[in-house]
Amino acid sequence: MPTTGRVLKRLLVGRAMRSDRLGETLLPKRIALPVFASDALSSVAYAPDEIFLTLAVAGGAFATTHSWQIGLGVVFVMLVVVASYRQNVHAYPSGGGDYEVATVNLGPRAGLTVASALLVDYVLTVAVSISSGVQNAAAAMPFLRGHEMPIAIALVVLLTAMNLRGVRESGSAFAVPVYAFMFGIIGMGLFGFARAAFGHLPQAESARFTLLPEPGSGGIMGFAAMFLLLRAFSSGCAALTGVEAISNGVPAFKKPKSSNAATTLLLMGTIAVTMLMSIITLTRMTGIKYAENPATQLWINGHPVGPAYQQDTIIGQLAKTVFSGFPVGVVFVSIVTGIILVLAANTAFNGFPVLASILAKDGYLPRQLHTRGDRLAFSNGILILAGAAAFLIFIYNAEVTKLIQLYIVGVFVSFTLSQTGMIRHWNRHLRTERDPKVRARMMRSRIINSIGAVMSGTVLLVVLATKFVKGAGYAIAAMVVLYVLMQAISRHYRRVREELHVAETDSDAQLLPSRVHAVVLVSKIHKPTLRALAYARATRPSVLEAITVNVEPDETRSLQQEWDRRDIPVPLKVLDSPYREITRPVVDYVKSVRRGSPRDVVMVYIPEYVLGRWWEQVLHNQSALRLKGRLLFTPGVMVASVPWQLRSSEGVEDRLDRPRAGSIRRGS
Amino acid sequence: MPTTGRVLKRLLVGRAMRSDRLGETLLPKRIALPVFASDALSSVAYAPDEIFLTLAVAGGAFATTHSWQIGLGVVFVMLVVVASYRQNVHAYPSGGGDYEVATVNLGPRAGLTVASALLVDYVLTVAVSISSGVQNAAAAMPFLRGHEMPIAIALVVLLTAMNLRGVRESGSAFAVPVYAFMFGIIGMGLFGFARAAFGHLPQAESARFTLLPEPGSGGIMGFAAMFLLLRAFSSGCAALTGVEAISNGVPAFKKPKSSNAATTLLLMGTIAVTMLMSIITLTRMTGIKYAENPATQLWINGHPVGPAYQQDTIIGQLAKTVFSGFPVGVVFVSIVTGIILVLAANTAFNGFPVLASILAKDGYLPRQLHTRGDRLAFSNGILILAGAAAFLIFIYNAEVTKLIQLYIVGVFVSFTLSQTGMIRHWNRHLRTERDPKVRARMMRSRIINSIGAVMSGTVLLVVLATKFVKGAGYAIAAMVVLYVLMQAISRHYRRVREELHVAETDSDAQLLPSRVHAVVLVSKIHKPTLRALAYARATRPSVLEAITVNVEPDETRSLQQEWDRRDIPVPLKVLDSPYREITRPVVDYVKSVRRGSPRDVVMVYIPEYVLGRWWEQVLHNQSALRLKGRLLFTPGVMVASVPWQLRSSEGVEDRLDRPRAGSIRRGS
Repeated sequence: MPTTGRVLKRLLVGRAMRSDRLGETLLPKRIALPVFASDALSSVAYAPDEIFLTLAVAGGAFATTHSWQIGLGVVFVMLVVVASYRQNVHAYPSGGGDYEVATVNLGPRAGLTVASALLVDYVLTVAVSISSGVQNAAAAMPFLRGHEMPIAIALVVLLTAMNLRGVRESGSAFAVPVYAFMFGIIGMGLFGFARAAFGHLPQAESARFTLLPEPGSGGIMGFAAMFLLLRAFSSGCAALTGVEAISNGVPAFKKPKSSNAATTLLLMGTIAVTMLMSIITLTRMTGIKYAENPATQLWINGHPVGPAYQQDTIIGQLAKTVFSGFPVGVVFVSIVTGIILVLAANTAFNGFPVLASILAKDGYLPRQLHTRGDRLAFSNGILILAGAAAFLIFIYNAEVTKLIQLYIVGVFVSFTLSQTGMIRHWNRHLRTERDPKVRARMMRSRIINSIGAVMSGTVLLVVLATKFVKGAGYAIAAMVVLYVLMQAISRHYRRVREELHVAETDSDAQLLPSRVHAVVLVSKIHKPTLRALAYARATRPSVLEAITVNVEPDETRSLQQEWDRRDIPVPLKVLDSPYREITRPVVDYVKSVRRGSPRDVVMVYIPEYVLGRWWEQVLHNQSALRLKGRLLFTPGVMVASVPWQLRSSEGVEDRLDRPRAGSIRRGS
Repeated sequence: MPTTGRVLKRLLVGRAMRSDRLGETLLPKRIALPVFASDALSSVAYAPDEIFLTLAVAGGAFATTHSWQIGLGVVFVMLVVVASYRQNVHAYPSGGGDYEVATVNLGPRAGLTVASALLVDYVLTVAVSISSGVQNAAAAMPFLRGHEMPIAIALVVLLTAMNLRGVRESGSAFAVPVYAFMFGIIGMGLFGFARAAFGHLPQAESARFTLLPEPGSGGIMGFAAMFLLLRAFSSGCAALTGVEAISNGVPAFKKPKSSNAATTLLLMGTIAVTMLMSIITLTRMTGIKYAENPATQLWINGHPVGPAYQQDTIIGQLAKTVFSGFPVGVVFVSIVTGIILVLAANTAFNGFPVLASILAKDGYLPRQLHTRGDRLAFSNGILILAGAAAFLIFIYNAEVTKLIQLYIVGVFVSFTLSQTGMIRHWNRHLRTERDPKVRARMMRSRIINSIGAVMSGTVLLVVLATKFVKGAGYAIAAMVVLYVLMQAISRHYRRVREELHVAETDSDAQLLPSRVHAVVLVSKIHKPTLRALAYARATRPSVLEAITVNVEPDETRSLQQEWDRRDIPVPLKVLDSPYREITRPVVDYVKSVRRGSPRDVVMVYIPEYVLGRWWEQVLHNQSALRLKGRLLFTPGVMVASVPWQLRSSEGVEDRLDRPRAGSIRRGS
């Protein structure tokens, strides 16, 4: 890596860490909560919006009447899921999370399904959270409007750089804003309810609008209304994304890992539920009107408000209403909401690379993903996640309402399979467990997980039914592609492993070749050539000869003359090459040697000169490299590079040897 | 290369040729004329247009009055230059052309200046010719209008494919259209003059327009008029580009090369001059009005014609007028003009790669450019030329009038230096030549070349003065960049050569190492590892040990156990790695061995398994590759790859061995 690249990397990524410092990066609860729960908590910033705008398709009255029912439905699902996952973290403290639970209890296919779902979901978490964050920030900073997409992508890049620095610093950096967000939202709730109690809670600015149903959906009733309610419920379930993050992240907790994780999970659930219901209730009390297409759905004095009306997010509108006359509060809530949403994406930056690394270790993903970078973070996974999220943000132009249609499917696929797996887990343990106390606890857990499984499965069906054509289909397609890909990779690794395996009784593989036939490739007589000849002679092979390829007869002739003049004690053989190739005559010659004495091994010595700079490499013929690559396909041949270090390479040696330079390590 | 790729290549490029077939690709005069002269001839398709539209800045009357003077000026320069170059091809038959002449007589800096100029110029020849060709074709096929740029780029791609097939087939493929073009233009001239002689020559459609001077240039006089005339003359000199192509291409002629080339040159000059003057004369006789901005400059009935008017090229308008009532003639002229212009770019496809190959041989460009492809053509040079030309076409949106401003500078830089070099050439020869007859011939040549040098230098100054700000400055900048780059490359090659040189008395380089210390890298016990151990044992080194890097203690422990259980007769050494690196511990260990006994050489055996498909490579850890790259920087070390061919690699062997597959050869 050139110096500037390394300096830049050091600035962005920090100094490399020893692997025994991995322990030091474990998180206490007060840091784990913001790191792992920011996703679940932050989703209250967009889940209510999606509930209200979906209901608003049937008009304002419909939205006001039904929003609290939807809210309660979501809260109920949330509590069931939190209770279920508290069983998981105790039973599986290793951090494989849903993937491990499904694999162990339902088999590798179920595990791989969960893995595909989670991978897709992490990408969507980043895309949705960051897009929503930018949208919320725009409420306080209107000049951002119209530039949401590039800003969102820039934020993805920023998060990527932060995460390449490693998990610990991320934790401390994110604690303050997450706590500020809790303080802001819960504070706003308390303040709002207090004002209402004293009869001072004003109406929102958008309360004066009439929210008309979308054309063609006026007077929605019966089945259609039911379908709309279910769709709103699906969208509201976005609040549940991120609950599984803690169960995937158990190993990052301080000890006792499991019970710390379970406590954090409960804390998170309580806070999320509180915030969600506060927001829904306050939205109804302040009469906020929120629509998917405000320009045509919101009317005032018999006219639509038109495209000039800029609809703030619900939290933005709430802050302006609740904190009317107290602008510091408004700005505070808007800013911390924007920040927490961006940081929520960080949950995925913690989860995705760890899961990818586990999958790589299990042979489902390329091994490079099982490699920690300089800062003990899984660099490759982080980069893939960031790339995929940036792609989605670009494609969907950073619009939350569109992105959210793809979301949630993944989460509930993994919830369902994970909870089903847990039922099997308890069944298996109950078969052997004799202690009645432990049995009672297990049976209690099994009931909780069964409720969780049924609930998650039902929600999954609802989500699929109401969102498939709106985008969830794409998410399913991506999962299928990932599933097939990971199966293929796994099959490839298995095949190679089987092919390379040596049976204990196999003695063929250790068979010694009878003789070594050494061949030194010569193009010119210069220092690298002479060194290669000297080294080859030092190995005392059975046969030693130099070969040159006759591409230009004049050069070959003068080479032969110099060879004789210098009295080099190795015979020089000239290979003809009518097609001016270099590789083929050498390969053919090597094969003819092998044909002559099949039990010999041929050692081809290639003199190489080593240059220090990449552009220098471009300037030199790549024929040695090409020849090496080609000879590897020929059985019975070894290829030995004899390097000659040119002066320009000396600096590189030093640079490469500097401790903790840009090298890559295997994960643990 | 995968099979489909090879089939595609075979279709586009043809079968590979033996190098002794190089002689067969020599060109007879009747084929050499279209191949090398198409550039010079085809420029009559845009040179008159540029003369008329430049003069038109000062109005229609000004253009009509002065066009023939400019035409005669260009003809005069053309004749002088042709006469001068006839001296060159006799004196230097080796095809280095201007580059060789300048290098030999004025030194390498002058040579390099010429080379930079010519390289830039070849690129512009492609860009200008193809853009003009598309523009001319649009006169006959109006549906092409508005898509000029993509069509031009597609044509560059097509030409590239044709040239990768080799020079001979290009010759035969291009002969017919070039002769058709000559027939078409000269035939149009004869027909036009005949009609005029009988008083039947009609006026052109654009004759009814009034050509107003551009706003602010009305009534141009004195210095401004002079400047405009010079600028028109500069543009007209575009007709001279390509004259030097023949002198660069002498080796491609059949014997006697020089006199065949000189004859072809004279033929080409005569034909070009005839066509140019015919077109200018006919344009004036038919009253054609041609302007840079037809929409505002051409008026009718007191109004500008507006953007709806589509101005055909001058040849297009002439054909429609001269062949009025004979539409076959119109279509024929338009089509052959379009085709010849595209083919003219072929001159550059012949010249550029040859020049680049000569420069590469002289160490000014990377050696890869001195490599002939399967079909004996210099593939890399062809691809670079095509890329650069496509870039210019894209940047300038295929507009001839803009591209032409960058053109011509390069040609006249090389004309001037080449002719100056020729004066020195004759001076040198006159110093030793005694035969009065030969001396008289040399003195005659010297006079011709002196006139050529003064003339070219003057034109160069005129071009620079009138076009620098319009674009010639960019061309000069590109030349400077190329010059500096080529100097740097040359310095690099020289430095490496000096460093690698072995003095005849130098015995150090042949010093034999005292012992060989062999090290086999082990990560797992599988077939490649066992083979590497067996091969290493077969070489009977002084010391032999296996080493493994302890990245994951569990794996290392089980490796050690299996090692003992299998009773492998080589000691296994474990290297610790606190940073989970693989490369550094190995490099450190190797260095410590060398430190212990500096006269030993260390041979590192790396077991590798070889996979057949590129995507399979991605799936396997690149650590072996990285380690090999790193060890090359360590002195006193050899790196031996011991390949194990997996089943998937077997097909590759066969594919690579098929005769004449996609391999690359060195040029001659």
